[in-house]
Amino acid sequence: MLKGISPLLIPDLLALLCDMGHGDEIIIADANFTARSLAQGKPVVRLPGAGVLQVVQAVMPLFPLDRAVDQPVTFMQVCQLPPGDTSQVQRDVIQALAASGETTAAGCQALERFAFYERCRSAFAVIHTGEMQPYANFILKKGVIADALA
Amino acid sequence: MLKGISPLLIPDLLALLCDMGHGDEIIIADANFTARSLAQGKPVVRLPGAGVLQVVQAVMPLFPLDRAVDQPVTFMQVCQLPPGDTSQVQRDVIQALAASGETTAAGCQALERFAFYERCRSAFAVIHTGEMQPYANFILKKGVIADALA
Amino acid sequence: MLKGISPLLIPDLLALLCDMGHGDEIIIADANFTARSLAQGKPVVRLPGAGVLQVVQAVMPLFPLDRAVDQPVTFMQVCQLPPGDTSQVQRDVIQALAASGETTAAGCQALERFAFYERCRSAFAVIHTGEMQPYANFILKKGVIADALA
Amino acid sequence: MLKGISPLLIPDLLALLCDMGHGDEIIIADANFTARSLAQGKPVVRLPGAGVLQVVQAVMPLFPLDRAVDQPVTFMQVCQLPPGDTSQVQRDVIQALAASGETTAAGCQALERFAFYERCRSAFAVIHTGEMQPYANFILKKGVIADALA
Amino acid sequence: MLKGISPLLIPDLLALLCDMGHGDEIIIADANFTARSLAQGKPVVRLPGAGVLQVVQAVMPLFPLDRAVDQPVTFMQVCQLPPGDTSQVQRDVIQALAASGETTAAGCQALERFAFYERCRSAFAVIHTGEMQPYANFILKKGVIADALA
Amino acid sequence: MLKGISPLLIPDLLALLCDMGHGDEIIIADANFTARSLAQGKPVVRLPGAGVLQVVQAVMPLFPLDRAVDQPVTFMQVCQLPPGDTSQVQRDVIQALAASGETTAAGCQALERFAFYERCRSAFAVIHTGEMQPYANFILKKGVIADALA
Amino acid sequence: MLKGISPLLIPDLLALLCDMGHGDEIIIADANFTARSLAQGKPVVRLPGAGVLQVVQAVMPLFPLDRAVDQPVTFMQVCQLPPGDTSQVQRDVIQALAASGETTAAGCQALERFAFYERCRSAFAVIHTGEMQPYANFILKKGVIADALA
Amino acid sequence: MLKGISPLLIPDLLALLCDMGHGDEIIIADANFTARSLAQGKPVVRLPGAGVLQVVQAVMPLFPLDRAVDQPVTFMQVCQLPPGDTSQVQRDVIQALAASGETTAAGCQALERFAFYERCRSAFAVIHTGEMQPYANFILKKGVIADALA
Amino acid sequence: MLKGISPLLIPDLLALLCDMGHGDEIIIADANFTARSLAQGKPVVRLPGAGVLQVVQAVMPLFPLDRAVDQPVTFMQVCQLPPGDTSQVQRDVIQALAASGETTAAGCQALERFAFYERCRSAFAVIHTGEMQPYANFILKKGVIADALA
Amino acid sequence: MLKGISPLLIPDLLALLCDMGHGDEIIIADANFTARSLAQGKPVVRLPGAGVLQVVQAVMPLFPLDRAVDQPVTFMQVCQLPPGDTSQVQRDVIQALAASGETTAAGCQALERFAFYERCRSAFAVIHTGEMQPYANFILKKGVIADALA
Repeated sequence: MLKGISPLLIPDLLALLCDMGHGDEIIIADANFTARSLAQGKPVVRLPGAGVLQVVQAVMPLFPLDRAVDQPVTFMQVCQLPPGDTSQVQRDVIQALAASGETTAAGCQALERFAFYERCRSAFAVIHTGEMQPYANFILKKGVIADALA
Repeated sequence: MLKGISPLLIPDLLALLCDMGHGDEIIIADANFTARSLAQGKPVVRLPGAGVLQVVQAVMPLFPLDRAVDQPVTFMQVCQLPPGDTSQVQRDVIQALAASGETTAAGCQALERFAFYERCRSAFAVIHTGEMQPYANFILKKGVIADALA
Repeated sequence: MLKGISPLLIPDLLALLCDMGHGDEIIIADANFTARSLAQGKPVVRLPGAGVLQVVQAVMPLFPLDRAVDQPVTFMQVCQLPPGDTSQVQRDVIQALAASGETTAAGCQALERFAFYERCRSAFAVIHTGEMQPYANFILKKGVIADALA
Repeated sequence: MLKGISPLLIPDLLALLCDMGHGDEIIIADANFTARSLAQGKPVVRLPGAGVLQVVQAVMPLFPLDRAVDQPVTFMQVCQLPPGDTSQVQRDVIQALAASGETTAAGCQALERFAFYERCRSAFAVIHTGEMQPYANFILKKGVIADALA
Repeated sequence: MLKGISPLLIPDLLALLCDMGHGDEIIIADANFTARSLAQGKPVVRLPGAGVLQVVQAVMPLFPLDRAVDQPVTFMQVCQLPPGDTSQVQRDVIQALAASGETTAAGCQALERFAFYERCRSAFAVIHTGEMQPYANFILKKGVIADALA
Repeated sequence: MLKGISPLLIPDLLALLCDMGHGDEIIIADANFTARSLAQGKPVVRLPGAGVLQVVQAVMPLFPLDRAVDQPVTFMQVCQLPPGDTSQVQRDVIQALAASGETTAAGCQALERFAFYERCRSAFAVIHTGEMQPYANFILKKGVIADALA
Repeated sequence: MLKGISPLLIPDLLALLCDMGHGDEIIIADANFTARSLAQGKPVVRLPGAGVLQVVQAVMPLFPLDRAVDQPVTFMQVCQLPPGDTSQVQRDVIQALAASGETTAAGCQALERFAFYERCRSAFAVIHTGEMQPYANFILKKGVIADALA
Repeated sequence: MLKGISPLLIPDLLALLCDMGHGDEIIIADANFTARSLAQGKPVVRLPGAGVLQVVQAVMPLFPLDRAVDQPVTFMQVCQLPPGDTSQVQRDVIQALAASGETTAAGCQALERFAFYERCRSAFAVIHTGEMQPYANFILKKGVIADALA
Repeated sequence: MLKGISPLLIPDLLALLCDMGHGDEIIIADANFTARSLAQGKPVVRLPGAGVLQVVQAVMPLFPLDRAVDQPVTFMQVCQLPPGDTSQVQRDVIQALAASGETTAAGCQALERFAFYERCRSAFAVIHTGEMQPYANFILKKGVIADALA
Repeated sequence: MLKGISPLLIPDLLALLCDMGHGDEIIIADANFTARSLAQGKPVVRLPGAGVLQVVQAVMPLFPLDRAVDQPVTFMQVCQLPPGDTSQVQRDVIQALAASGETTAAGCQALERFAFYERCRSAFAVIHTGEMQPYANFILKKGVIADALA
């Protein structure tokens, strides 16, 4: 426990978020996500007592999104829905991301399920939440905290 | 030992079954299966005192099969038998799988021996039973335990 | 995820609970507990998204308490309260333990803070919850799942 | 699998039995035994699909008992029974040991539960069986396979 | 790098600070401190580019001191100075600690050099700074971040 | 040491032989064989006090050869000899293999030196003997110990 | 701490610099650099309390640059600037490198961002500084300390 | 294999013999010796194809005995024999030791079995031979290879 | 230290030389050689107090060169010299190799610098000497110590 | 290799010397010293190509001795010599230490052999040289490199 940091950010997770550099990506996945296999040896942090929305709300106060790309957030397209439609959890998470001031709804792109899996292979780590909603999987790309160029 | 869980599900095996995600596959193999080599470093759990049927009966009360594919169960085709024929153990296991309510006999497909080996290379883990019957090798694909999409 | 098992029981925790034998003790601790130091290298499982009550409710359907001792449950006495008084969380947890049918309120004993720490040194593992209430620390002693003596 | 060796003797167990020297002791324990804690880091081999009798029958064809002591076999005294009385499983196992020709019923001594635990601390390894009978715990002391002294 | 957290708090250090529980102690030591030997295998984090004052200023916004003891801060008494006297760095650090609102100057006690070494043996970790001033060694005892007792 | 098993089969070797499955291959090599490099991290067991013949005689009572292939034994062709000719050690070993009843002389094939090396790359393990005769290198392919198909 | 060596050169870093051979390259990176991912398991040494200039000034008194190539120093081209333009930090570091007598400004080449990343994949190690200026990333190629050829 | 060194001295054993310093002791034990337990984590090298005499003959050309003590060799007293009597193997080994010129028969002392075990606890390593004779256990104390004192 | 073996052959090096099989190659490199990178995880043994000539003189009494190839020794061609010319150290080492009786000067071939690096990638190990002369890098290919073919 | 640092100070040794703090002790031992046993798991660095004098001369330019004690250097008393007498190597090393300006001959104390061994048990590391002179064993106690107390 540290002052001003969500208790959800346990020591290993805090270290991973801090260790990520410009352009690294972290996955925040639902409870049924194929986390261990896709991680291929990279860290899997479990937060079974929290949903994806809670985890995003815990992470965002500390985490800069990458402003060098147009869409620093990616989520898994729901198979049963037409392109452009989202689930309730996806809408809630996108709203929380926008509320953080780090991106906007337009900065969040949908990605087809198997393309999403493929993208995960180069991720930095996976946060495996206890989210029971299907398709509630997000990828956040880290930005920088730098001085202005001199 | 835990209440309501078969004593065959020893701690490491219970953790592996729980750790698998949507689409991951586990092998339940007979005693002569080339388990260590095909596992290529992935976990091999030994249950020498139980046959394949007993292990399947221990696993199924906890394990959801993948309903997103037509045939979430695969078994090794007996070389000496014509396609479509099965051994007694294979029939018993298929019946137990159907009895679990997670699939039907039609959800179990035969696969030629060397194609079966190839498929094992991407499996999550191997349960190496004490089954003395030849060709008693199964692959189970895990499904999800999720809320309805909101 | 496994059928009929709480998502809070992540793979490592499930394995630890199963690996415990007759008389082994597990600690379910609040978020400020000195978990790492007292564990002295034994496993610490983190469940930051859940309180002690939720964790006890997830564990008890699988976990037999030791009926060979009078008081298989121990909790940390609140320093500010007179002996015999308990906090709200403690009362809720004791009620949940009794509701499991594994013990009664009388089977739960209070233990002074530093004696509690000392007792932890021989524990099997620690579950470090996200409980924000102080003094919400419990020790559960495992019983057996055996046939009648023949 | 090896010719003439019980399938219960999985690779790690076979190696342990072979690695033991004159006077080393192995524990064959029931499913509720406090195996991991008492082993204190020494190997615990799990055979959940077999009872203590089956394991003893698999081990004895390969395993010499120590003829340099009067009682190379020790078992846990049933608490509820008067000294000298044994459970059914204990009688079956003692008979199997005698049938191996390595000892006699008189070579098997009862030991009180907590003294038995203490003795386990210096054991070579633990075989954790799936035995559901309580008090079905044995210690075997290894003998030698040597030429006559020249 | 994380938003609102000093770049001095590198990933491993952030994890250690977060992992500490109620009553655990961390050492912030000068560059000549016998860190590796006294740590006896516990973590040593190096921050050679920062002095003790800078490190304390980086740590305190996140770190609760233990309010359950009168003096949660300890520092090494300068051998050459009479009891009660402190070095300039010690005065600066004590002032920074007081400025954090977590303690006061009176909450910081001096400890003789070899007693200080002895105290280090039970510490959680050591931060080995680049401080070139002698005797610039502090021990901080962690407090709690909890809800009010209900 | 175990009853009825050659003392040459030390614990690690016994475990390896037992761990091999249907179709796995083990190399029994002379003292000059490039064992470590070709093993590429797989186990190398040393038996410097025994020749290849002695090792084969120790292994065969436990080891089933693969009857699903025509030639379950392979040996390195002597460079200086015409195809079909063998060294004295090779003849002795082939005779011992045939005497085991697991194969015949016709079940043993010669393989050119560099093809032999290539074949070793997929072997399960290497037994590095103290054999001083050149070209005394064999590969044994493991068979099954199964019930008749039901 | 060692006499005549900057305190910034902590033990692990000193060992890495010494372990490098002719032609090996080390990266000195700013605080936002994607250090862990690009290092791909090779060492990452953190110096959060120092900027790139300070680190270069600490390293150069010990470190020979490669005189067998024309440009033993490479830095990341600032994206927003035309080729040939550099940031203030880059100019300061280049000046410090030239002042070391190991190279000249002409010995330092700019490299486009993604080509720079690619080059990092074969580096020996990464020094992750606390530099807050963007694009402050350098690669130093090590030379030799040898006698004249005899 | 190295020129002029017995093939029995496999790489790990050669390294151990070389690594021993003045006064370190190595055990050369028979096949039934309690090697693993007494070694308590120190190296156990297996030479199952050789007896104690062969191993001593392989070791002595390289190994200096300690001339600073009267009796640099110790062996286990045969229980069944009166003090001063030895087995045939013991006489053969003592003769081989004397023939090496490193000691004499008088430099070899008998030690009672359990005192011998106790002495093993501080040994450098154990060579576990295939010796089938009982009581064929020796301890060799290493001497020096030094220039004359100047 | 062992009798008749150079003190330069420290335990790890002695084990490596012994562990090499027929055709394996070891590199004896000068102090500036890119040892760690080219070794790619294979062992690097450091002998900083000795030159290449001393190391070759220590190794050759134990080390058989490969007589199955024409040139079992390779060295790095000096860039500044015409093909066929060698440095003084190279001439001294070649003379020492010839003096060992294991090869002749004609058995030593020069190899261009980058081809030499490429060849190192498949080497067994690297001996990193303290040689200050440039281009003093050799590769020795191991032969056999075998009986005549029977 | 680094500029201005002796090639004898290989990477691991350089890191150890740097990692030592105020009061830590390093042993510089002759070739017959019981290094591995006395080190009890702490690092042993081998420098077989150098004598103790050369190693001391390589270390001293970087290494501050402890000025807080009267005698920061200890050496092993030659058994055969009366107290106060020293060997030639000991005199040479003491002279080199005095020449470094870090101590004087009076700052070097003799210690009886077994007391010396006992002292080694708490040392930081051992440098095992190739020194062939007996009794050439030294302990150096590290001092500080600090600013004046402010």
